[in-house]
Amino acid sequence: MALMVSKTLSGREYKIKDISQADFGRLEIELAEVEMPGLMSCRSEFGPSQPFKGARITGSLHMTIQTAVLIETLTSLGAEVRWCSCNIFSTQDHAAAAIARDSASVFAWKGETLEEYWWCTEKALDWGPGGGPDLIVDDGGDATLLIHEGVNAEEEYEKSGKLPDPATSDNAEFKIVLGIIRDGLLVDPKRYRRMKERLVGVSEETTTGVKRLYQMQANGTLLFPAINVNDSVTKSKFDNLYGCRHSLPDGLMRATDVMIAGKIAVVCGYGDVGKGCAAALKQAGARVIVTEIDPICALQALMEGIPVLTLEDVVSDADIFVTTTGNKDIILVSHMRKMKNNAIVCNIGHFDNEIDMHGLETYPGIKRITIKPQTDRWVFPETNNGIIVLAEGRLMNLGCATGHPSFVMSCSFTNQVIAQLELWKERATGKYEKKVYVLPKHLDEKVAALHLGKLGAKLTKLTPEQAAYISVPAEGPFKPPNYRY
Amino acid sequence: MALMVSKTLSGREYKIKDISQADFGRLEIELAEVEMPGLMSCRSEFGPSQPFKGARITGSLHMTIQTAVLIETLTSLGAEVRWCSCNIFSTQDHAAAAIARDSASVFAWKGETLEEYWWCTEKALDWGPGGGPDLIVDDGGDATLLIHEGVNAEEEYEKSGKLPDPATSDNAEFKIVLGIIRDGLLVDPKRYRRMKERLVGVSEETTTGVKRLYQMQANGTLLFPAINVNDSVTKSKFDNLYGCRHSLPDGLMRATDVMIAGKIAVVCGYGDVGKGCAAALKQAGARVIVTEIDPICALQALMEGIPVLTLEDVVSDADIFVTTTGNKDIILVSHMRKMKNNAIVCNIGHFDNEIDMHGLETYPGIKRITIKPQTDRWVFPETNNGIIVLAEGRLMNLGCATGHPSFVMSCSFTNQVIAQLELWKERATGKYEKKVYVLPKHLDEKVAALHLGKLGAKLTKLTPEQAAYISVPAEGPFKPPNYRY
Amino acid sequence: MALMVSKTLSGREYKIKDISQADFGRLEIELAEVEMPGLMSCRSEFGPSQPFKGARITGSLHMTIQTAVLIETLTSLGAEVRWCSCNIFSTQDHAAAAIARDSASVFAWKGETLEEYWWCTEKALDWGPGGGPDLIVDDGGDATLLIHEGVNAEEEYEKSGKLPDPATSDNAEFKIVLGIIRDGLLVDPKRYRRMKERLVGVSEETTTGVKRLYQMQANGTLLFPAINVNDSVTKSKFDNLYGCRHSLPDGLMRATDVMIAGKIAVVCGYGDVGKGCAAALKQAGARVIVTEIDPICALQALMEGIPVLTLEDVVSDADIFVTTTGNKDIILVSHMRKMKNNAIVCNIGHFDNEIDMHGLETYPGIKRITIKPQTDRWVFPETNNGIIVLAEGRLMNLGCATGHPSFVMSCSFTNQVIAQLELWKERATGKYEKKVYVLPKHLDEKVAALHLGKLGAKLTKLTPEQAAYISVPAEGPFKPPNYRY
Amino acid sequence: MALMVSKTLSGREYKIKDISQADFGRLEIELAEVEMPGLMSCRSEFGPSQPFKGARITGSLHMTIQTAVLIETLTSLGAEVRWCSCNIFSTQDHAAAAIARDSASVFAWKGETLEEYWWCTEKALDWGPGGGPDLIVDDGGDATLLIHEGVNAEEEYEKSGKLPDPATSDNAEFKIVLGIIRDGLLVDPKRYRRMKERLVGVSEETTTGVKRLYQMQANGTLLFPAINVNDSVTKSKFDNLYGCRHSLPDGLMRATDVMIAGKIAVVCGYGDVGKGCAAALKQAGARVIVTEIDPICALQALMEGIPVLTLEDVVSDADIFVTTTGNKDIILVSHMRKMKNNAIVCNIGHFDNEIDMHGLETYPGIKRITIKPQTDRWVFPETNNGIIVLAEGRLMNLGCATGHPSFVMSCSFTNQVIAQLELWKERATGKYEKKVYVLPKHLDEKVAALHLGKLGAKLTKLTPEQAAYISVPAEGPFKPPNYRY
Repeated sequence: MALMVSKTLSGREYKIKDISQADFGRLEIELAEVEMPGLMSCRSEFGPSQPFKGARITGSLHMTIQTAVLIETLTSLGAEVRWCSCNIFSTQDHAAAAIARDSASVFAWKGETLEEYWWCTEKALDWGPGGGPDLIVDDGGDATLLIHEGVNAEEEYEKSGKLPDPATSDNAEFKIVLGIIRDGLLVDPKRYRRMKERLVGVSEETTTGVKRLYQMQANGTLLFPAINVNDSVTKSKFDNLYGCRHSLPDGLMRATDVMIAGKIAVVCGYGDVGKGCAAALKQAGARVIVTEIDPICALQALMEGIPVLTLEDVVSDADIFVTTTGNKDIILVSHMRKMKNNAIVCNIGHFDNEIDMHGLETYPGIKRITIKPQTDRWVFPETNNGIIVLAEGRLMNLGCATGHPSFVMSCSFTNQVIAQLELWKERATGKYEKKVYVLPKHLDEKVAALHLGKLGAKLTKLTPEQAAYISVPAEGPFKPPNYRY
Repeated sequence: MALMVSKTLSGREYKIKDISQADFGRLEIELAEVEMPGLMSCRSEFGPSQPFKGARITGSLHMTIQTAVLIETLTSLGAEVRWCSCNIFSTQDHAAAAIARDSASVFAWKGETLEEYWWCTEKALDWGPGGGPDLIVDDGGDATLLIHEGVNAEEEYEKSGKLPDPATSDNAEFKIVLGIIRDGLLVDPKRYRRMKERLVGVSEETTTGVKRLYQMQANGTLLFPAINVNDSVTKSKFDNLYGCRHSLPDGLMRATDVMIAGKIAVVCGYGDVGKGCAAALKQAGARVIVTEIDPICALQALMEGIPVLTLEDVVSDADIFVTTTGNKDIILVSHMRKMKNNAIVCNIGHFDNEIDMHGLETYPGIKRITIKPQTDRWVFPETNNGIIVLAEGRLMNLGCATGHPSFVMSCSFTNQVIAQLELWKERATGKYEKKVYVLPKHLDEKVAALHLGKLGAKLTKLTPEQAAYISVPAEGPFKPPNYRY
Repeated sequence: MALMVSKTLSGREYKIKDISQADFGRLEIELAEVEMPGLMSCRSEFGPSQPFKGARITGSLHMTIQTAVLIETLTSLGAEVRWCSCNIFSTQDHAAAAIARDSASVFAWKGETLEEYWWCTEKALDWGPGGGPDLIVDDGGDATLLIHEGVNAEEEYEKSGKLPDPATSDNAEFKIVLGIIRDGLLVDPKRYRRMKERLVGVSEETTTGVKRLYQMQANGTLLFPAINVNDSVTKSKFDNLYGCRHSLPDGLMRATDVMIAGKIAVVCGYGDVGKGCAAALKQAGARVIVTEIDPICALQALMEGIPVLTLEDVVSDADIFVTTTGNKDIILVSHMRKMKNNAIVCNIGHFDNEIDMHGLETYPGIKRITIKPQTDRWVFPETNNGIIVLAEGRLMNLGCATGHPSFVMSCSFTNQVIAQLELWKERATGKYEKKVYVLPKHLDEKVAALHLGKLGAKLTKLTPEQAAYISVPAEGPFKPPNYRY
Repeated sequence: MALMVSKTLSGREYKIKDISQADFGRLEIELAEVEMPGLMSCRSEFGPSQPFKGARITGSLHMTIQTAVLIETLTSLGAEVRWCSCNIFSTQDHAAAAIARDSASVFAWKGETLEEYWWCTEKALDWGPGGGPDLIVDDGGDATLLIHEGVNAEEEYEKSGKLPDPATSDNAEFKIVLGIIRDGLLVDPKRYRRMKERLVGVSEETTTGVKRLYQMQANGTLLFPAINVNDSVTKSKFDNLYGCRHSLPDGLMRATDVMIAGKIAVVCGYGDVGKGCAAALKQAGARVIVTEIDPICALQALMEGIPVLTLEDVVSDADIFVTTTGNKDIILVSHMRKMKNNAIVCNIGHFDNEIDMHGLETYPGIKRITIKPQTDRWVFPETNNGIIVLAEGRLMNLGCATGHPSFVMSCSFTNQVIAQLELWKERATGKYEKKVYVLPKHLDEKVAALHLGKLGAKLTKLTPEQAAYISVPAEGPFKPPNYRY
């Protein structure tokens, strides 16, 4: 695949939808800055010393307005940045335009094909002959995956002369990954290893990406240090929970205008994302039902007045279905067949395989009616009943709305900036091995503290006697590492 | 003002934004039909007997998808319909397109000027030489106003030869009304009186329009019977309350993507609309403060844990301001000057005079930055602080989002259909005088009953003994007229 | 029945449980006074002029701490008072003791038999040879009933010499009423007619009592003017709703200590009382189901995310059942048989006939195990499953807890004081006929206003222009009479 | 101190309030059993094998109905048990009576003096000449403390002949501990060391007790293994959170009958206990304000719409103050002086030193008026304003109500049973050293699972493919150890 890359006057590359939307993007970025006190504090605290001077950062993370503020925080601290989105539908084109024009190389637009998506990822990692990025900001782990698979393939090729073969996978997307690596190998059989050599580390945003990293750590295949940003309290207990509480109804409303009050809504999974979704739906007047595998999370749902049943129990009664599990095959086509006419099916958890999109697309005689982009009605031939699938089974808050709001993303992204700073500062000290790390609690508390002023909050201070009484430093950290919040 | 009117192949007139959006509109109308069981029941119950055979209905009511289902319910019962919107920003252009192409004459588009707005209203009332409509569906009372002012002017002109003079009003919009009437008078000095003669009655949708009708009734100036649909329980306690609970956050999110959680939000007024708004904001995690003039409503807010203060007390602290009062001059420019940077100001109550838009527009040195249509940042010169005003001070749920969702509008609009049927059926009996009427409770209960099945509800039936015990008919109505729900 | 009546040193009669609890009662009365700003305002506004000078007031209303503050408000305005409770379980004995010792004649104790109950009612009405009270404060209408039945019987007796015959009724309680009247007739055949002559009017507290009054008005049998206090907004939308929201869980907890979270709770009826109960249970983490006969109330429940089903649908699944209907035969013994072991059944609506107590008591082989007073486990012989019935089917918030809290009762009782003042002031003017009246809205608003200061609320004032714009006086009343709040 | 000990016919010792309440206690225990599925499952799963055969268990944990079900679970598994309460006000005397009569030695009554309290603790540990208990169930760590201090003192005495001297402490309670140990030492200078030798371990219930254990582990002074039950998810995220959400309003209502709606309530601390309290107060209609030292917890409060301020900011405005911190000196007498008349002050967190009771009691001229037991009004001489202090500053839910409800305590206590079983089973294997342990996640999940059936919940099962995809066993545990729920 060869797409045309544009350049700014200053020579920065980009491939986006429409550079003329840059002004609109800039205006929304300016609004977002007021809502992102953590990132703005990073600019004022660290900007003067330019700690990222000389660092090349590649990001693979939804190219939204909020991400734009993250990118410009990185650049204002001295970094050079190349960026792609980590989801084919999540880019806000005006955000991409503003960044492409003003701050960094961007390869992202709303509505990429899967081929285009991986082309963008490759471009974001491609810093020219000198190797790849020094640091990666990853979301879902696709940039990390590409490097790991690339290194793998290069080593195999060097050893055995065998090229990666897309035909060996039956996952449509992984075929594309293998194709891209194969094509690259023929041009430059060392590029991913050069990347690996240069790479200082990655900071990963999500549960899904983190799970991949821990698996690689367990297998001993992780090629560079990783900081698990997802498990900062100020990330997973905020972005995942309060972010989804905000953006799930937003996505539903923009996509379908459905009245939530009075409806029966099934939330599959009651982790942080599920808790946020269930809360939002309940508050809007829906009758919520949760499905769970974990008895502890199930009991939490019950304590909030939410019944816990299986999907089979409720599939014919419910009006709205939301997957939040991080697992696959949650809503199968065999479920979707039994749903009420115009039941809404959407995913806010993880990849599009939470919903059996493949089964749906290949169902004999199925008819797809696109109401508008990211809102499709799929009509089953037997019943003539249709179901409404949002964002083609991908993250509906990013596909149908604008993702999480700025304030909560400021928490997540301040963790990212701190993680990147930490990796870069310690790049030569050996502090971080090829393992997965969590940020220390005092930094987690700092991220929270940076967001209190905007909301007018005032903290109480421990007296020395009180601090001694509960055996913590008066300035924190205030909790043991395993504290659950 | 003379705008070009288009015609369908069958000769029906329309003036809309883009007829090519008709297919998209049709798809959304079909989705909405599934959510509007009250209207669909009217079609199946009354459709066969074609009760509106021969009736001409003019509507002045937000030209949305939901209204499209109302219009097609009227036409499927035999009516001929002409329609305009009752708000310059509330039209959904794809809804207008589908209706214009398939069902009725439409004069409406999103973003009319005030001149265009009144031109549309005039066109919707203009059924040609034979006089005007038989029935009016009104929202806010503008169609009713135009006829009353027109008749007034014609009589004055006939008596004294005096033409209406726009210069006599200092209300910008009323100047336009007078201008339109004056121009019409010169062409046809009897049109509004012919309209009045033909008119069987009006059914009015809103608190504001109803207030005008009762004033006219009190003054003895009401020219035809009116049914107050707003005060059906299934309207004001549903659409106003649950509709706004849904569409306020929808409008806020689409316009600004602001995180509501953690913010301080001021809701001016705690009537049905205010109650819905306050509930929505509270549930989304805002700290809500209410302003009220009425001690009873104030005490209700307090019982829900919501403080009641004056706007002055909180104007510098709050992040979001919402007017819901139905009154004028609620948020003055003197308030807006003191707000925090990027405070959001919007109205979901009534006309744009709840917010002092005139004061804002004429503030010396003020700078208006349009982020996107219906989202403006107004920057005060002294502080360089900006405030975000939505929908230019007009109804933000219709200007920035898509208004209330279908299900709740089905309640409101089923009342409209029933009111129109009642007026038309009794057109010759003298049952309705030139007064304002409310629908009888058994019809109100019927509207509710039509919406229960969709939500899977099952009613309990009174035994004859129980009915006797509480002295109501076993089939209802179940409550005394003054029951408050 | 002849019970021993005690006398204070000053000669005031009483019959209560234990006068030694008077100090404890006094302490709690003093706490309550701080929570009852409406009543305390009445004392300071009206006390100096002693408007009730010379008035004898009989009250039949739960003899609680809050009622004690009402009684002492009446006496501090100059009235003489005699009091009984309107429920056999609702008296707080320490409240009765303090009042008996310090302020008024009281005939009430917790746990009266039905015979004792009607003896108390009769004593409270018995002001000696000069006739009965000038005014009645009634709750449920029993004092009013006794007079009406008494007058009836006296007239019949005078006419036909026929005495009332308890055997003619199969209602156990009404037999007692007839017996009491019969016994009285033989002693004094004119007492109830002398009462009727003297009586200026009654103010009635509850939905149930008001219903009886309107029936008597409709039948033309009402013997004196009545003010319907229940339908003041500041009564029915506060006491019924917020009072029950508070006191339902209070009663459940004190009686059973049951964890509400996680349970399935059925609320029969979704009027004001039912709305308060459903809200309380939902907030405490129960899954609430509502049963309703009225489609409008049913649709309200659905909009709050509460399913509406019939009792039959859920009788075997639910853990807690609450009746709030004001009707009879809501939960039958045929339902109770099917309930889960230890299901809780209680009534907060009306008389004990909401629950089929008679059916339960006479069920063959049933076993009653009294856990503690007002908490009985009834075990069915077939299944050995028991159900827990609270307060013997009577109002559980008064039987198992202490009724509504002071603050909300201050609203209700301020309406009572105002109603009594109005009746007394107009006693000679003929303003009030033998009809049922509601207090005018400006007094309703005044009651609310008296309760705002305590909660730190500040009202906004209408400008003259704003008042004119919405056509209301700047000082209120602010709403039309049919406004629903 | 020498109190008279009674004996059952079978020779079991007890010292309680009133053995005649045993029948009442038994009835409530039977009700509680139906609500405690986890404990009842332990009985059926483990009862047959009598795993505690030969084990002596001493418990120091609130002697309530729920604890009675725990005790009888331990005895039904074969243990011999001696019990005391861990709080002077928390005993339910009927529960103590039933247990003393039927199942175990009990030394506990509601309203112990501090001297009596420690006498009870000593008696519960005193198993006669053969040494102390094999196992301890501790709550707050007082039994553990007494042994550690006893051993300390014995060793010091053996070494130096020095006896513990109460005069060396200025903590009133610790003086008593030292006195008890000193008196014991003179009688038997080896008893605590014999206890230590015999002891297999302790399982600790609370945050406060766990903190003490970790300090001893850190100092190397812990004398036997300990299992930290508090940090099981099914304990701290259930009992602390949902338990307090239930029992805080219960305590407030029983103690004061105050209307919570409309009030301003300050919750000091937003940990699990604080979250439960804030949720309960908010739901009941209070305006809640939180004070916090930890920015993360503070930001959580803000996301729920709760302002975070300092106590100083709100001390004069609030109506209800609740401490939940686990720290000391949270509400000082200097704060209490500034409070509104009849402000309510209570503690649900930890010891009575959260509230400065000492400062209050010794305030010059202060007047204490006991409304009823555990409800005192303290009147300041300068202002004549009083504040209402609950349970003398001790845990108000146990002092003024009946503690947490059975269902949630079933979760906590099932953890206790499992912990005790584990310690006992491994008593000879050396698996547990003198350290603090948390139960493994699969047992935590098991506890939750045992509570689902009662609430009608149905879990979804992972397919093998799904389990592999997320890398967990299909039967769980489902989450990594640091998962926060």
